[in-house]
This record gives sequence, C-alpha cells and structure tokens, in this order.
Amino acid sequence: MTEYRFRHISFLSDYGESDEFAGVCRGVMLGIAPEVTIVDITHSVEPFQIARGAILLARAVPYLPHSVHLAVVDPGVGSDRRPVAIQTRDRSCLIGPDNGLLIPAAEKLGGVDSVRVIENPGILLPERSHTFHGRDIFAPAAAHIARGVPLEQLGSGVDPSTLVALELPAVRREGEALKAIVLHRDHFGNLELNVTASDLAGVRITTGARVEVQIGETIAQAMFERMFSAVPPGELVLFEDSHRSIALAVNSGSAADRFSAGPGLPVVLRRLRQPEEQQ
Amino acid sequence: MTEYRFRHISFLSDYGESDEFAGVCRGVMLGIAPEVTIVDITHSVEPFQIARGAILLARAVPYLPHSVHLAVVDPGVGSDRRPVAIQTRDRSCLIGPDNGLLIPAAEKLGGVDSVRVIENPGILLPERSHTFHGRDIFAPAAAHIARGVPLEQLGSGVDPSTLVALELPAVRREGEALKAIVLHRDHFGNLELNVTASDLAGVRITTGARVEVQIGETIAQAMFERMFSAVPPGELVLFEDSHRSIALAVNSGSAADRFSAGPGLPVVLRRLRQPEEQQ
Amino acid sequence: MTEYRFRHISFLSDYGESDEFAGVCRGVMLGIAPEVTIVDITHSVEPFQIARGAILLARAVPYLPHSVHLAVVDPGVGSDRRPVAIQTRDRSCLIGPDNGLLIPAAEKLGGVDSVRVIENPGILLPERSHTFHGRDIFAPAAAHIARGVPLEQLGSGVDPSTLVALELPAVRREGEALKAIVLHRDHFGNLELNVTASDLAGVRITTGARVEVQIGETIAQAMFERMFSAVPPGELVLFEDSHRSIALAVNSGSAADRFSAGPGLPVVLRRLRQPEEQQ
Repeated sequence: MTEYRFRHISFLSDYGESDEFAGVCRGVMLGIAPEVTIVDITHSVEPFQIARGAILLARAVPYLPHSVHLAVVDPGVGSDRRPVAIQTRDRSCLIGPDNGLLIPAAEKLGGVDSVRVIENPGILLPERSHTFHGRDIFAPAAAHIARGVPLEQLGSGVDPSTLVALELPAVRREGEALKAIVLHRDHFGNLELNVTASDLAGVRITTGARVEVQIGETIAQAMFERMFSAVPPGELVLFEDSHRSIALAVNSGSAADRFSAGPGLPVVLRRLRQPEEQQ
Repeated sequence: MTEYRFRHISFLSDYGESDEFAGVCRGVMLGIAPEVTIVDITHSVEPFQIARGAILLARAVPYLPHSVHLAVVDPGVGSDRRPVAIQTRDRSCLIGPDNGLLIPAAEKLGGVDSVRVIENPGILLPERSHTFHGRDIFAPAAAHIARGVPLEQLGSGVDPSTLVALELPAVRREGEALKAIVLHRDHFGNLELNVTASDLAGVRITTGARVEVQIGETIAQAMFERMFSAVPPGELVLFEDSHRSIALAVNSGSAADRFSAGPGLPVVLRRLRQPEEQQ
Repeated sequence: MTEYRFRHISFLSDYGESDEFAGVCRGVMLGIAPEVTIVDITHSVEPFQIARGAILLARAVPYLPHSVHLAVVDPGVGSDRRPVAIQTRDRSCLIGPDNGLLIPAAEKLGGVDSVRVIENPGILLPERSHTFHGRDIFAPAAAHIARGVPLEQLGSGVDPSTLVALELPAVRREGEALKAIVLHRDHFGNLELNVTASDLAGVRITTGARVEVQIGETIAQAMFERMFSAVPPGELVLFEDSHRSIALAVNSGSAADRFSAGPGLPVVLRRLRQPEEQQ
C-alpha cells in the first residue's frame, strides 16, 4: 500500500442519507486518495445544528483510529466564514468550517496545535460552488492531507485564538435543585442532560438515590442507577451514559416518547427523601 | 496485506444512523484491525427487537463473504446476559449478546460448533461502560477475531445447549385456513408472513390460485403468483419472496399502507373457489 | 493488490436502510471481488421513483472515481425488462435495469458506447429469485466487471437505440412567466426546480432580481442570489445549486416546510419590478 500519512478519514455531516451529498464527498476523497478508508460517523445531524454535530464528533473521536476527521455542519456556507484545517496536539487533523463545530473534538485530541485556512486552488476542486463546500473544498482537503500533503500547503496560518468558539448551555444549581436542559434525544429515546455525576453529587444525588424529575410541565420519579437494566422494564432511570453524561431513560422504552421531550427542554432534578430517611 | 483470518466483518445493530454509535464501533474495529473491511448490513433494526434483528441477520449471512458477523440488539445490556462468540460449523464467527439474536444465523452457517463468553480484559476496551457494550466489548472482540486471535482466548467455554433460544411465532392451520401473522413490513411496504410455500400447499393454495386474505379486520382477495409483476399495478399479490417466505404485496404500491399493517398483525389465508370451479 | 480493472463500485438504490437488501448486495460484491471499495451514493431513493434515482446518479457520477456504477430502482423486477450493462465513452460501466435509470448518468460519462444484456449464468448467482435482482443479477455482474471480466461475457449485445429513455418534465415559458415544477425536495428542504439560469435569463431574471414565486396556491417573493446566505436567515431565495439547477430555499430554514411542497408541485416564476424601476 502507498504510504499514506493517514489511513482513515472519519466523516460526519448534516447531509442526510436521502440525497447524493455524502456519497459524492466520499467519491471525491476516494478519487484523490484511492486507498484511504472512510469511517462514516453519522450524516444525520439535524440540519444546521452546529452544537449537536460538535457533541457527536467529540464523542466519537476518542474511539476512532488516528485519522483526518472531516466534519461539515455549515449553515454559513458561501458566506465569509473560514474553511479551516486544525492540527491537534496528538497529530490528528480536523477539517471543516470555522463555526465552533470542530472545537470540542479538538479538545478531546489534546487541543489545537496549529490552524490553516483552506484556500490553495491546487488543493480544491477546479470549479467551486457557493453551496457545496463539502464536495468542493473540505473533502479534497481531507484527502490530500491523508495522502501526506503538509498542512502548510493548504493556505495561510490562522491564530488559534481567533477560531469561533462553541457555547454550550451550563447546568445551574439553585438551592437543592439542578436546573438542566435536554442536550439530545438519542435513537433509543434516551434524553441526555447537560449534567455530570459530580453535578448530581453536589445536590446529594448518588447511586441508588430516588430523584424527582421535572421535565417540561411533568413531574416524575426516577432512580439514579449504574445501568438502566437496574430498574424494571418501563421504569424511569437516571444513569451515567457511555460518555459520562447523565441521561434519563426508560428501561426497554423511550423517555423521549413518554415525556414528548427533545433537545432544549428544561429539566429540574431534586433528591427525594429516601425510604430509610422517612419517619 | 497482513494475513488476517477474516478479511470482512459484517455489522448489524439497532443503533440507528442518527447517533455516533455505529460509527464509533466501526472506528474501534478499524483501530484494532486497520485492514479489515466492514460490511454494514443495517443499523435500523427497531430498538430492542431481537427477533427482527435475528431474522435480518439470518437472511443476510448466506450471501456475505466468509466473515466475522457482529450483531448488537441488546435490551439486556448491563444485566447478567452473556456476551458470546459463536464459532459455526462452516468456520464463520458470530459475535453478540446471548439473547437469541445470533441463533437463526448460526443455523444458516451450519449450526453452532463452539461458544465462548467474551470476558478477557486483554481483548476488551480498558474502560467499559454499562450501556455501550457494542463499543467496549463486542466490536473489540470482532476485530481481534478477524486478526486471528483464537476464539479460546476470549474467555471460558459455554455449553451450546445453554444459549438462549429464539421463539418465533408459528403458523397454524385450522381446517382450510392458515392463521398467520405479519413478521415484518419491509421498506417497500411488502408484508412478510410466517408462512412458506409448503404451508400454502397444505391448504391447496398453489401458483395461480385466488386467495382470500383477512388482515386485521379487513378482507381482500389476492392472487398467488411467482412475482408481483404478474398482477397489474395496484393489485394485491401473494408471492414467495427472495428468502422463500410468503409475502403480501401491492404491485408498484405498499400493502402495509393499504392495510395499515405491521409486525404482529394476524392474517388469515384461505383458498377461494377458482373461476374454473364455479358452477 | 490484485489488479482489478475497477477499484471502486458505486452503489445507488431504493432499497432503504431498514432492511438487509443493500447490505446483502454489498456482501455479494465483496464475496466476488474482495478488494473492491464500495462507494454508497444513497439507498433512500423513494421506492420505484426511476426519475429521481436517475437524477441523483447523474449528479454523482462526475465526482466519483473511475468506477463500475451499480444502480437499482426497478419497479419492473421479474417482468421482461432487460438487465443491462452499459459501457460509456469514458470507459466507465453502468449496471442496472433497462428502464431509463442509467441514461442521464451515461450522458454525463460521455454517452453510451456499447450495451450488453446480463444473462450469462456463469456470472449470476446460481439460484435467482423473481424479486431481488440486485442481489442475484446486478451485484454479481458489477463485481465481475470490476475484476476484469469483459463486458462481452455478460450476454448478447443490445442496440443502444433500443434502450428505454427517460422523460423528464420540461420548463415552459408563457409570456414573461416560467411554468416549472419541483423536481426534488432535498434533505435541507431546498426545492430543486426544472429550471436553469439561462431559463431565468429568458424572462429577465438575473442575479439580484426580485422574483414573484407562485408555488401551488401560495404567492411569495424571493431574491435571485448567488448563494442562500446572501439573504437574511428566514428569507426566501432562488439560487443556482451545486449542480447548476435553480433551487428555492429559505436561508437557515426549509422552503419545503414553509410551502408544504414536494416533487411535482407546479411553480410559476416571474420577474418583479425592481426598486429602482418604481416611479
């Protein structure tokens, strides 16, 4: 095999699967770097939801092989937002728009080492549209980097401090309550919250605790357990998910369907008096 | 190319495509076995529907290259259900939870030869969650097997007779009627029944016969033909599908939409007097 | 690596992702040509929508590496429509049913050079169903071609002039108005029209023009701009999309949702008097 610098390119986007968009980007990459293996993360990020794409990408990268990571969620395509390539401290490379999408993943990969704007016409497709930079700019850049083109050849340097940051909503503590929001509804209907186990510990919610959960207008009770199978099927449970976020689930069911809940909905968590504390 | 024992890993799950779950498992496998080719079967098994996953996997494996087959539909993740690796008599390998999911596929591959529980910490990811065994246990096991790690190194032996079986509903004959159910609604709206051509022959339904179909509360007529294009567009037809199950279809349309029908719905089939029999 | 004639097989179908259909075809191809790389374009063409599949395939092929292109949207499976392999003037190969699906892509690849019907039993799977020719006929043919089997070995020659053509609806000009239709609603809710920039120029609509858009029963105004980010978020815009078709979009929103619009809906476009023209 030709000695590529990166054998794998991971690929995340909001292109969906119903058009040819993701397939065309794969084709462009394989045309430039025929021996690369493309690892699709997902193309079902909700259109234009930069934060959602950023969270998924940051979750995935620690488990992927040493790669070029191509990510495109790009509501500003065609405007003056910069197309960038970020080299991280662990020598991985992230390619995408400068809109915050790449930042949480870069932090998981050791932090930003250096950044280039992608502008060298020798790297891009010869004809470039105003609306499909995945095909015309980002995919070619990713493939050339995989083959070994040095980052410096993409374009001029960018001061990392000028990269657009990503603001994620923070959990707040009010007295004995945590005021959180739903970050994400996953495929199983689990609701991921912007809460960690140490946030819970701050309001005395530890494994085995009973918790009052107010989600939108509804109030329910849940156990905080290590796994959702610790409660009977159909019961509500809080647990630390596989990315160390606290999530709300129904064992063998869908918490999202039960509460008609999705991203952005406010959630209040409060420790309930435990049975052994009752008089 | 490094000499792998298996060049291909097939992959089926209920992870969906909207999260990073399937992509992360692909990444874990390619990190361990960079030269393996992953063949995605589907990740859109309905959440927790073990029987559905088992049927799809069994349909697919006879057409796949000699492979490690990784399958994860795992409502019991985090409980004491065993993660297992099954070597089949044709020397393929099936990896997944011991909940019945792998059994019909194993039968298609010659039957179960030997079974190991997957428990060797040297094979698993170093940190293991309670909720994402696809990433932490099953994907690493599949990739190590592909590279040539012997099955015995995964963990202790399992008596094949202790594997959890899968109960699929059987068709019943009552007089001249077959009482069946819908096993599956496919992407085209075809309704696959738990019926074979020999079940039909038992109630004198052979190719060219007119059939009364009661589906839920609705009664309709269908022809039993060799292919759905044997009836005019829009007409109902029974046919033997590409896996030798009997299915109910509307030529160039959707039987599922016409009857608002999906898995589990009862169906009664009965031969109608043929035109040439009428007096 | 074995010297294959084609290193890549692209694959488009209406099989969806929820069944095993596309995965089984991938498996069949990799069983015959283990070192080929499959480039999935999409499998979410709406069932039986030949024109939609043809448009997507034609959009994709100019950006894919030199390949065998396998495409299956095949409402006539099991009837007497011919399975064909088309060699194009640029020496690519298209495999699929003779129902018009492959024609626009063939034109993008230089036009049809020669055609064979796929009928050689030594190429096909030994057992062939009446309903799943993707698995039994098309995928094996694509994989054998990739490995270097000459087109002539597939079956007898077909006169290219007998290939089934594809009729796409044409835009009409009536006075100062263009009468068009929606060809496609993409994943972002952009509505692609059967209109080009030169059609617009024929009714004096050029970049920067204000346009009256009648879509179904609704009348709205849009700007014709080079990119959708040229209008404020939430505003309607006409633009030339990345395939040089005119599309109607809402910046950071969905035109399809705003107008409840999808393929086939009539659209009338008319230049509005520009501000500087008003008295």
